[in-house]
Order: sequence, then C-alpha cells, then structure tokens
Amino acid sequence: MGKVYLVGAGPGAPDLLTLRAARVIASADVVFHDALVHPEVLALARGRLVDMGKRYGKVSTEQRFINRALVEAARTHAVVVRLKGGDPMIFGRAQEELEALGEAGIEAEVVPGVTAALAAAATLRTSLTRRGVARSVAFLTPRVGRGETSSEWLPAALGADSVALYMAAGAAQAVAAAMIAAGKRGDTPAALVESASLACEKIVHSTLDELATQALPRAEGPVVMLVGEVFAREEAIAQQAVRQAASR
Amino acid sequence: MGKVYLVGAGPGAPDLLTLRAARVIASADVVFHDALVHPEVLALARGRLVDMGKRYGKVSTEQRFINRALVEAARTHAVVVRLKGGDPMIFGRAQEELEALGEAGIEAEVVPGVTAALAAAATLRTSLTRRGVARSVAFLTPRVGRGETSSEWLPAALGADSVALYMAAGAAQAVAAAMIAAGKRGDTPAALVESASLACEKIVHSTLDELATQALPRAEGPVVMLVGEVFAREEAIAQQAVRQAASR
Repeated sequence: MGKVYLVGAGPGAPDLLTLRAARVIASADVVFHDALVHPEVLALARGRLVDMGKRYGKVSTEQRFINRALVEAARTHAVVVRLKGGDPMIFGRAQEELEALGEAGIEAEVVPGVTAALAAAATLRTSLTRRGVARSVAFLTPRVGRGETSSEWLPAALGADSVALYMAAGAAQAVAAAMIAAGKRGDTPAALVESASLACEKIVHSTLDELATQALPRAEGPVVMLVGEVFAREEAIAQQAVRQAASR
Repeated sequence: MGKVYLVGAGPGAPDLLTLRAARVIASADVVFHDALVHPEVLALARGRLVDMGKRYGKVSTEQRFINRALVEAARTHAVVVRLKGGDPMIFGRAQEELEALGEAGIEAEVVPGVTAALAAAATLRTSLTRRGVARSVAFLTPRVGRGETSSEWLPAALGADSVALYMAAGAAQAVAAAMIAAGKRGDTPAALVESASLACEKIVHSTLDELATQALPRAEGPVVMLVGEVFAREEAIAQQAVRQAASR
C-alpha cells in the first residue's frame, strides 16, 4: 500500500510552492493535479502526470471518480500526490478525498500551501488584519444565485472585519448588493485581485457601492474579492501624499 | 536606496518555507527576524541576522524601533528582509512597517507564507471548509480580558462556520465560555493544535463545553484553537472504525 499526499500548489506563481511540496512532487510516482497548477510546478514531477482539471469541481460523481483514482493509484504506487491550487484545506474538497482514502485504509498526509487570499493581500501590500481596525478576517465562497441563499455566507461576511471571497469572478456585483442590503455601508472599501501572484495579475480598487452598480469585464483567471476598512483606497492615496511630502 | 522584503517564514517546520522566501533570505544583506523562526530557516541567510523577537509584539514604541531599523537598513543595504512567522499579512503587524517604509520612500515587497491555521488543519487532516457543512472560515485573535471586550471578536467567531483563533494559548477557556454565552452550542467540536508542523506539535480534541470548564496545562509553543462542526471527534472515530474494518 502506498501513501497519498494532498499537496497545496500555492496561489499561482511557481516559486510560491513550499520546499516540502517541491520535494514530495519530485518523489511521486504519479501526480493527480488540478487544471490551474503552473507548468513549472508540474515540471518538477518525475512520475506520471494526470490532469484532473476537467473533472474537478463539477458534480459529485466526478469527485467520486477522483477518489477512486487516488485509492487505486495508492494500491500500486508508493508515493501518490494529489496537487491542488492554493492550500488543500480551504475550498479544496480535500475532506471527501481524505475520507475515501481513510475508508480504504490508505495513509494520507496533507502538505499545506499559500492560499490565494494571502497572495492577494501581498499583491495589495495590505495586511488583512490591523491593530485597532481589523482583528478578524473571514474566507468564504459566495455562490450567489446558484440555488443557494446568501444566508449561508452573509453572517461570516458581516461578522468579520475583513473579508476575502474566493471564486468571486462573476459574483462581485451580487455579493456587494447583498452585503449592502444586509446593512454593510456602501462606502466600505473593496478590491478585486485576479490571478494573484502571476505576471498577468490585475487589481481593481473599489467600494461596495461601485461594485454593486457596475458590471465588471469578464475575468480570465481566478478572482479574490476583498472587503473591509483596511482596503481603503483613500488611505493609500493619503499615505502617498505623506510620502511625497516627506521625500521633498 | 535598498528594497525591503516582508517575508512569511511559514508555520514552523523549515521546509514549509516557500521557494521564493528561501531565495530572498539567501540574497539578503540583513535579515530582521522574529523569535519563533526555525534555526534551519535562519541558516539560509548569508547576510547579518538581527533578532527582533524580544522587542516584537510589545508596546508601540518598540514597533517604532523596528520600523526605524528597517528604514535605516534600507538606506545602506540593497536587500533587507523582515522575516515573520506564518504569513506577514495575518496578525503580523506588517501594515505599520509598510507604512513606515512608504513614508520614507522605500520600496517594499511582501512574500506570502503558509499561515498557522492551515498547518493546524493539515495536522488534523481536517478541511476548514466542507461542502454542505462549512463554507466560511474566520481567522481571528481573541485577547480576552486584556481590557478589550469580546464584542470585537465574537461577531466573526459566531458568523463563520469554522473558526481559527490565533494566539489562543491561555485564552481557550475564556473564548469557549464567551462563545457559549453568546449562543453557540456547548457541544460544538473544538481542537487545539500547539506548535503546528513541528516535531513537538500537540493536539487536543474537545468541545466548547469541555474547554469552558477545564483548565488546560500551560502551552510551550503557539496555539491555534479551532472551532466548528468540521472538527467533530466522533466523526473521526467513526472513520477510524470504518478504516479498521476495511483493513481486516
């Protein structure tokens, strides 16, 4: 019986992989990877690569297909890697795979990774928490209007000082409108970071009011939507003014 | 004028550093590091090491001391690294340093890292989110009874499906009691992970009721407290039974 490693590939840039992840990928007999993993990360693998991207994230039958593939691979290989974008324990559906492996009596280990919201915060050079302003941050997925109600994600979005919404491409307008309708101030700062940490990353600074009323162009890559006082654009501008004054 | 990199050292284990962090640390002329950074990570540095640990996290005068040290170092060195445990943008007081650097006109870049809660989730092999059970997770610091009221962190702790409390050593009992008093079910599963990712890591599985009524032994290392249905111990035990049955 082999061992299965659930490995976080990080937010996108290949050098945001951990040293441990790089070592485990290089030692794997087979690597089952998501669609968005960077080619330079896949190039570390010396074993067989299997792209689960097209199946990943669709209906549960297909999750069962992935579970079965992992179990079967571990019966014939010593080291099996399941490589997921970001960190496996946040929005990675890892639990279903861990349970399938546990039921089959197969050893599993999780290698954590840098999650997308932290790469987005690094890009913005804005701490998600700040003394006196934000002592909590919530990570959540909205899935607005897909037969699920906002009651499932709004309490977290309203309760935390800073909010990072994953898989927010296409949902920003509906999310902003729902947060305003639930009592969040329309002038609350917001930012969208697309393809965080990659060369093609894009940043939009905005407010909930602006996002609720403006349709955004279609995103090419994954989008993290950030909401909270720490993302204030005005403050950034004021800081720049102070900086300029100081440098004179 | 040099450049300052705010670098995440990851949760503890030296191989949970990112490839980029390792490269930046090796190229630095000087590295200002926190107390808890692993010796093997510090050994990557070829420049001067300065331990800011004793000053870090105390009064603001001392934060100003760190800010000034970074600004001065960047005036005489090309590459300056500020190395922080975990990720710089979560509970790292990075904003104060970024602002000081911005005011001095010094270029800064943030290198994200693996944050402690994700290492704790990997240790527990428990996803912080799970389809149909938890679609949000809040990261927060409690600081119960230090002159700050629970109203500052309770909304996030109650609004999110899963909760990860940082710097929870010593606060677990008060946090659990406050969450129960605010209406959270006493049988809500909870777990404590001390020194996540290190060889000396420790795990306690519990419930809010148990944590609220039992004093815990003093922790040696940093503690992440995790609360939510996904941390159910019973489920873990049931899974183990299935696993044992399967292996017979």
